[in-house]
Amino acid sequence: MRIGGETTRSIRPGATRASFSVLDQTLLPWRVAWVDIATPEAAAVAIRTMQVRGAPLIGATAAFGLALALRDDGSDRGLAAAAAMLAATRPTAINLAWALARVSRAAAALPLRERAARAWDEAVAIADEDAAACAAIGRHGTPLLAAIAARKGRVNVLTHCNAGWLATVDWGTATAPIYAAHDAGIPVHVWVDETRPRNQGAALTAFELGAHGVPHTVVADNAGGHLMQNGMVDIVLVGSDRVARNGDVANKIGTYLKALAADDNGVPFWVALPHSTIDWQVADGMRDIPIEERSADEVTHVSGAAADGSPMRVRVAAPGSAAANPAFDVTPARLVTGLITERGRCAASEAGLRGLYPEAG
Amino acid sequence: MRIGGETTRSIRPGATRASFSVLDQTLLPWRVAWVDIATPEAAAVAIRTMQVRGAPLIGATAAFGLALALRDDGSDRGLAAAAAMLAATRPTAINLAWALARVSRAAAALPLRERAARAWDEAVAIADEDAAACAAIGRHGTPLLAAIAARKGRVNVLTHCNAGWLATVDWGTATAPIYAAHDAGIPVHVWVDETRPRNQGAALTAFELGAHGVPHTVVADNAGGHLMQNGMVDIVLVGSDRVARNGDVANKIGTYLKALAADDNGVPFWVALPHSTIDWQVADGMRDIPIEERSADEVTHVSGAAADGSPMRVRVAAPGSAAANPAFDVTPARLVTGLITERGRCAASEAGLRGLYPEAG
Repeated sequence: MRIGGETTRSIRPGATRASFSVLDQTLLPWRVAWVDIATPEAAAVAIRTMQVRGAPLIGATAAFGLALALRDDGSDRGLAAAAAMLAATRPTAINLAWALARVSRAAAALPLRERAARAWDEAVAIADEDAAACAAIGRHGTPLLAAIAARKGRVNVLTHCNAGWLATVDWGTATAPIYAAHDAGIPVHVWVDETRPRNQGAALTAFELGAHGVPHTVVADNAGGHLMQNGMVDIVLVGSDRVARNGDVANKIGTYLKALAADDNGVPFWVALPHSTIDWQVADGMRDIPIEERSADEVTHVSGAAADGSPMRVRVAAPGSAAANPAFDVTPARLVTGLITERGRCAASEAGLRGLYPEAG
Repeated sequence: MRIGGETTRSIRPGATRASFSVLDQTLLPWRVAWVDIATPEAAAVAIRTMQVRGAPLIGATAAFGLALALRDDGSDRGLAAAAAMLAATRPTAINLAWALARVSRAAAALPLRERAARAWDEAVAIADEDAAACAAIGRHGTPLLAAIAARKGRVNVLTHCNAGWLATVDWGTATAPIYAAHDAGIPVHVWVDETRPRNQGAALTAFELGAHGVPHTVVADNAGGHLMQNGMVDIVLVGSDRVARNGDVANKIGTYLKALAADDNGVPFWVALPHSTIDWQVADGMRDIPIEERSADEVTHVSGAAADGSPMRVRVAAPGSAAANPAFDVTPARLVTGLITERGRCAASEAGLRGLYPEAG
């Protein structure tokens, strides 16, 4: 990822293994600030307050947070308590539980005094593997964009929320093919859904595409159907917070509406994800993926920047009116053209997933 | 309509026939202020800057504006020039052209000195007829809600944008059945789409439902599909800016996405409109209804109120990112369960419309 001309990652392990730092995404795109995290509690706060967000980055942050916990208390009880505390921060992202289980397993196998170092190594491995997985997603997704560009001279992608490098350790999931295609000289333009209520599209995806030099246009979440009706979208690329075994896709609220519009207009709808997003335990995503209900304040108010660039929040809902805020929805597999993973592309189905991951589940 | 306990209308003709007043909807829901309009130019500004909005109210405002123009210049040329000036304020709403044509026809038939008075009477008639039409829409739509409530004990309506009394002269279109049902003691709850980029749902629909005492909950535009997937919406009721002869419905951007979700989940999707919204000249709404492209600022920025209630605008899109802002979309007739007009309910088709309006077109 590039930020201010510098190549870096969204999470940086400290050299002393006593802390790590993350970009504070609640301040973006207005201010670029790194937050140092030296305790598991601080890691939990960073996840809960969405200083870090995006399923893969949440997983990596939790992994480093758990490694920090073991420096103070490497006992089985300490490990379990810290893992439980970190797991409770966000309910929908499967990577969170996956990363905590992986670090716990690696540490628990060793004597107490070796656990903290082993957990840290595991967290580093999770971060490195995520970056490699996203790069591979980029390689497997690029041909989809290249084929459209070969036919039409350019390719218009629509994306929802932020499944970019800010949501992962590097490259992003949905954005990985976009960056790879752009870097390969394919003319790509991205329609960026604003993504209310938290505006991750307008604030974060637009920011990172701009930082990388990818042409893009922000639109209200309401606009995507109209764009597709008028032939202005060639492909929809989104990320996911959890993919069920049957190919149902949990992602940011509103994803389902774009999948319906894509289906109605013959626009391919692809979901990009690393294997850690797949929940083999959930057979039916529509029925069994829990959906986080977030604070009504996010709907009644909008955060942005005042004319001088300072953070500012305005109320948009009529005084006295209540609001509801389901944070995710589930797109049924029947509306998904296919999945792009670090191992390649497949159908959004159990057969498709098992074809790529025969060892799983 | 009730506002601050007072029963009034959204447009008030002045007793001297030299001016009229409208609620400044750009200040709602934060401040209730009436604007006096004494010239056709001021009427055009009120329409263009959206101090008045909603197809029927735009029509009534243009009608009074044209009547004011004839006080200064009642010539054929003056009439045509003023009508053209007012017609150019907004491109999508059919009522605008319809109201101007009606006032022009009534005035042009008379000697110059009688034209201004006749035009004023015609504007008053347009306003009175709109209020009566909306009341009738309420009567014809209420049985739909009553039937659901009889079955389920209560009825959950979802609406998009503001097709309420603030968009008409009184009662509203989509809201007329809601107010009528609520006043009749039917337990109604309304999901109010925020309606980015201008937030007419969160600001205006929530305001007027609250003023009337109707239970409601504001949601992000992204949430409606999820609510429908989970059985939390019994019926969708929206207004329209223009209905083509074939039943295609132009309405606020994002309406099409809700129609898709309703269709996918077996939720009835009804459109409420007075006859002035029907464009008999447009045979195919998907192909031929022009869609207004509004300023990108509406997408990159959000208007609301600061903590002290003062109007405030914040930027939400990353600095340097461009935005696009199509203001309406077209919902194909195949996704519309039916139309509710002042003459009753009908299918969204030419046959349905001609059944209610055999004299038309």
